[in-house]
Amino acid sequence: MLNRRGLLAASGAGALAGAAGTAGAFLLGQGEPASTAAPKAAEPQVVPFHGPHQAGIATPVQDRLHFAAFDVAVSTREELTALLVSWTRAAELMTAGRASSPDDSGEALDLPASRLTLTVGFGTTLFDRAGEDRFGLASLRPPALADLPAFEGEKLDPARGGGDIAVQACADDPQVAVHAIRTLARIGLGRVSVRWSQLGFGKTASTTPAQLTPRNLMGFKDGTDNVSGDDLATLDQHVWVGRGDGPAWMSGGSYLVARRIRMHLEAWDQVSQEDQEATIGRTKVEGAPLGGRGERDPFVPATLPADSHVRLAHPSANGGVRILRRGYSFVDGSDSQGRIDAGLFFLAYQRDPRRQFVPLQRRLAADDRLSTYIRHVGSGLWACPPGVSPGGHWGESLLG
Amino acid sequence: MLNRRGLLAASGAGALAGAAGTAGAFLLGQGEPASTAAPKAAEPQVVPFHGPHQAGIATPVQDRLHFAAFDVAVSTREELTALLVSWTRAAELMTAGRASSPDDSGEALDLPASRLTLTVGFGTTLFDRAGEDRFGLASLRPPALADLPAFEGEKLDPARGGGDIAVQACADDPQVAVHAIRTLARIGLGRVSVRWSQLGFGKTASTTPAQLTPRNLMGFKDGTDNVSGDDLATLDQHVWVGRGDGPAWMSGGSYLVARRIRMHLEAWDQVSQEDQEATIGRTKVEGAPLGGRGERDPFVPATLPADSHVRLAHPSANGGVRILRRGYSFVDGSDSQGRIDAGLFFLAYQRDPRRQFVPLQRRLAADDRLSTYIRHVGSGLWACPPGVSPGGHWGESLLG
Repeated sequence: MLNRRGLLAASGAGALAGAAGTAGAFLLGQGEPASTAAPKAAEPQVVPFHGPHQAGIATPVQDRLHFAAFDVAVSTREELTALLVSWTRAAELMTAGRASSPDDSGEALDLPASRLTLTVGFGTTLFDRAGEDRFGLASLRPPALADLPAFEGEKLDPARGGGDIAVQACADDPQVAVHAIRTLARIGLGRVSVRWSQLGFGKTASTTPAQLTPRNLMGFKDGTDNVSGDDLATLDQHVWVGRGDGPAWMSGGSYLVARRIRMHLEAWDQVSQEDQEATIGRTKVEGAPLGGRGERDPFVPATLPADSHVRLAHPSANGGVRILRRGYSFVDGSDSQGRIDAGLFFLAYQRDPRRQFVPLQRRLAADDRLSTYIRHVGSGLWACPPGVSPGGHWGESLLG
Repeated sequence: MLNRRGLLAASGAGALAGAAGTAGAFLLGQGEPASTAAPKAAEPQVVPFHGPHQAGIATPVQDRLHFAAFDVAVSTREELTALLVSWTRAAELMTAGRASSPDDSGEALDLPASRLTLTVGFGTTLFDRAGEDRFGLASLRPPALADLPAFEGEKLDPARGGGDIAVQACADDPQVAVHAIRTLARIGLGRVSVRWSQLGFGKTASTTPAQLTPRNLMGFKDGTDNVSGDDLATLDQHVWVGRGDGPAWMSGGSYLVARRIRMHLEAWDQVSQEDQEATIGRTKVEGAPLGGRGERDPFVPATLPADSHVRLAHPSANGGVRILRRGYSFVDGSDSQGRIDAGLFFLAYQRDPRRQFVPLQRRLAADDRLSTYIRHVGSGLWACPPGVSPGGHWGESLLG
């Protein structure tokens, strides 16, 4: 297999015999990604890039996250398309564990693909920036890509919200995820700028619920009832945009809501375990619904405190609404009061935020006992197009 | 083995049959850490806490870092001692993969010890805070714990420097490192406050140089010639404080210098690989000294550019001076210009900074071609006492 090192050596001062062939293969990969840069399913660390849906949504959640929201500086549709084409070519190579180009920055050179996925979403401002139709896309804006309403108690920092294009990089190695985002920023130099970004170090909800459920920084298991990435019927019903749902270009795509949720951990840590459990609605150690003994014990909403988090968030309390969560814990140092700047970077995929995230969050913001200990401080919404076909690119359904 | 879950379940609402025995073992562990909380050498994920030197210095470098600098709020020596005793008891448990207490915050409950180490250092302000001898320790301040001088080109942020006590938490799982620092902050509530902290996601220098050398965010291998953690003679000569080196309480300890080094990655990425290699003095892919082919090829300083980083930093150019590095890459989002706020969190241990870090850094700051692409923005110096004896505590040699 052509690896990252071979590609780079071919262009650098350390070029050795045989490098010419490697460079040739690289160029071939650039021109014919379908045949050469396509990931190899036999390699367990490679998540296939191409497919009907973007990778990084139903994909089993990787350990680490680097998320970036970009603003686009180019002004024509052709330039926007060219950007997405060059990004897609680099993504095909990097997700296959290869260097992004002969002058790759190199920090992931010795590392395997690490199940890297790159998932792209288009923000409201790409379609309508304060009334300006920058790329002639206004008529293609999906109704489901409606600006999120204000929620009770939130305190959003504009420096941690919005963005024309979001890229979610997930990998089992943080250096691989960081390398991928940095590489896209570098490719886009002068064409995009990073508006904000977020590192996540610990997944808090998995899409493989049969496996060990991870814990968030409050110490509780998070994601016990999350949508399973191999439950195709549930994905079709709640996650993937259907054919009749809006503009055709989003069919097979999904809507991403990101929320930076600060946890007041110093306050939480002063609460007794019993009160914590009543607030969440589950036991701390086992993650069992209160009154039960095991994490998978039957969930009987009426037996839980009316204002407990899992009772209010449960599909049974929300008309069956479900969302697919892929959140990560973050710690960004300390604030000016010496409190840990930490919490949950909530990432949720869904078919229509107007029917899923919005009513769910409205309810939680109003009634959830957990609200005392958290605050939403960043927010974003993006339309993630369907998967990329071999030879195609991230903008193919939207931009042609 | 008693694990984290057993301890917590004993106190929570989910307590089951058998929990009483677990709780008893916990209490025993509190009172007699030597016999019960001592780590088990047979478990590869446990790094022994006790010993002549603190763990986390010569220990093979773990993958992840959470570093915190605390300021002490108590005013008496007795209170300071009590803090360090309670911290030590929790550290003994956590490094053994156990809960820190029955009301542990819980986010590491299901995780193994992950080779967690906790390493403590005492800052200059513990001995002399603007002329104030807060704890009667002024006469015990080692001459080697001299304030670092200003270096050319640095731009230090006071919000990322200093601190009465530093704690370095290293582990292979970031959640374990984060949990450990958070737990010490929680135990110290009202007695200490976090002054600043830093997460590191990728080790950049290993103390096992025979293994694969990691890469920093500039894409170059970093630490090829680092001090090996099992090279006892070199450790004694360059890392561990000797008996005649200063006050007796530091014998077997080491001095830690931390520097937050911002990398200007956007600028670096515009430089050709050839120029990058001339700046570093090594090839990018192999990490070979320029002119050589392999990473371990003979290092001939005269063949490298006079202002290249590795030539200037090499022991042969610095009177044989060596330091033990345990640095980590960091990415803390983006700055207000959209540039990645990333770089190297440099951690170096040594016998005497006045003869090691200070002259070395003075030279690099003045002449190193790499200086164009980096800036030192945070700094700290701490005296790390020798290892803790069973039943003792981190302050035992200093405070008795």
